[in-house]
Amino acid sequence: MYIPTIEDVKLAATRIAGIAVRTPLLRGDALDDAAGARVFVKAECLQRGGAFKIRGATNAIAALAPEVLARGVIAFSSGNHAIAVATAAKHFGVGATIVMPANAPRIKLDRTRAMGAEVVTYDREGESREEIGVRLSTERGGALIKPFDDPNVIAGQGTCGLEIGEEISPDIALVPASGGGLASGIALALPGARIVAVEPAGHDDIARTLAAGAIQRNQPGVRSICDGLMSEQMGEIPFAIARERFDEAVAVTDDEVLRAMKFAFLNLKIVLEPSGAATLAALLSGRVEVRGKSVALIASGGNVDPETFARALAI
Amino acid sequence: MYIPTIEDVKLAATRIAGIAVRTPLLRGDALDDAAGARVFVKAECLQRGGAFKIRGATNAIAALAPEVLARGVIAFSSGNHAIAVATAAKHFGVGATIVMPANAPRIKLDRTRAMGAEVVTYDREGESREEIGVRLSTERGGALIKPFDDPNVIAGQGTCGLEIGEEISPDIALVPASGGGLASGIALALPGARIVAVEPAGHDDIARTLAAGAIQRNQPGVRSICDGLMSEQMGEIPFAIARERFDEAVAVTDDEVLRAMKFAFLNLKIVLEPSGAATLAALLSGRVEVRGKSVALIASGGNVDPETFARALAI
Repeated sequence: MYIPTIEDVKLAATRIAGIAVRTPLLRGDALDDAAGARVFVKAECLQRGGAFKIRGATNAIAALAPEVLARGVIAFSSGNHAIAVATAAKHFGVGATIVMPANAPRIKLDRTRAMGAEVVTYDREGESREEIGVRLSTERGGALIKPFDDPNVIAGQGTCGLEIGEEISPDIALVPASGGGLASGIALALPGARIVAVEPAGHDDIARTLAAGAIQRNQPGVRSICDGLMSEQMGEIPFAIARERFDEAVAVTDDEVLRAMKFAFLNLKIVLEPSGAATLAALLSGRVEVRGKSVALIASGGNVDPETFARALAI
Repeated sequence: MYIPTIEDVKLAATRIAGIAVRTPLLRGDALDDAAGARVFVKAECLQRGGAFKIRGATNAIAALAPEVLARGVIAFSSGNHAIAVATAAKHFGVGATIVMPANAPRIKLDRTRAMGAEVVTYDREGESREEIGVRLSTERGGALIKPFDDPNVIAGQGTCGLEIGEEISPDIALVPASGGGLASGIALALPGARIVAVEPAGHDDIARTLAAGAIQRNQPGVRSICDGLMSEQMGEIPFAIARERFDEAVAVTDDEVLRAMKFAFLNLKIVLEPSGAATLAALLSGRVEVRGKSVALIASGGNVDPETFARALAI
């Protein structure tokens, strides 16, 4: 098992240039006031495809040997990784087959198809997406682009942290975590920052994993509004990084997430999907000690259906 | 009457640094596809205070003599200029009195008060805000910071265009226009671009002004969802620039504006207020010939009440 390093993240940054965009670090007077800290919001909702996932997908596809790449790519994803793989595959001129839950947000299904990918849906509560993905990969011969448990994907997501580190030296980075690809990549890229993972309440395997020192699973069937943070467990490579580098994991409720989405609407003027607002929810609910610190907050995506966003506005 | 130049805009850029922020130029695959052009969205909704107005307000206040500045400032505004003057005054450590319509969006009234300003409301359809502003200025001795008809305000707003010009050389700039401060400032800063002013349907004084070669007024009482684009007429200094530099003015309906707000939500992940979405509405409704061109689109602000945004989401 190869554990990527910051050098892999730096290489990834050269590969994704011109495909992914450099997202801004946003400030907000109301946010600083609410947190009692200097808060820098890494707005990955403004990333191409509406989420950070294009970083890892592009780096993983760019790393494929030409004869492998030519057979196309396959991915399984609840949404944002799907859009990202479809977008990167289109950039490299190869086909993409994406396995998605039938009840994924419509905006994510639509956007994946709009990027030219073939979408294969499955029942999230009855079937295993991993099995379907592996079977399709075997049948069709395309390379499986994993969503998080892959050194190139982790290094690619880490470019988000690299960009932060080029502008500020945060004391703390608040990162949404589920499979752990983004959070572990950012941990590699920001060696001087305290890393706080944020996960959905009731789906708090990362807190238990850190406490136990071994990967823990979530109960199947747990529901959360954070559709992008519902992995069964962390990946093994992310865990190898997390056990060394994650300082803490905190959990946020659906209600806190909806309030954070509304806060971002009112005060930052960005659209956050529930998973993308989890870190802001952790900050605003006071679950992390940040007073007087410099805080990098990863707002990881903005692909949310109008109906869900309207729920946040009405809260 | 002093007509500012690009040199004044460059001086303004040095004065606003550290108070206003440099906003990003956003791209979107779906936007390029819809327009058939390379579109760069200058996201002033991500500006401090949620709109471009901080640029002009800061430059105008920075230009005051110290003994004048010490007496505080006064402004009249439908909202975003109010927030901006309050924010800049707070930065310079002086008091601000802001005259606002009683029916201005609540988010704008609240944010202005939150920045420490005293808000004086008036009835938009029965009273003249200019008269109230001049009277308060006379009574209290503070400097009146005009919203658009002021060389320093225009030069300040022009910094938005200067930033665009440092990154791209657009063929066309689509700019919302009412008093004309932003549009004329951007015309100064982007001498190589075709300047297209966008205004609300039924409130199309700028098209008539350009056609007549003399300032025309709007009928009082006309309603539009674009609360930030409801000036009675252009300012005289903006007009002096516009007659030389504006190539065209197009008008957008409330329905087109709401659709553009939803498009920005779905595809750009930014929150636009109606006035801030007017240029996008003009682009998406095909009112401007842009095919194959490089287009800078000024998305001027994002201060919109949840209720109005929910109307856009439901369209």
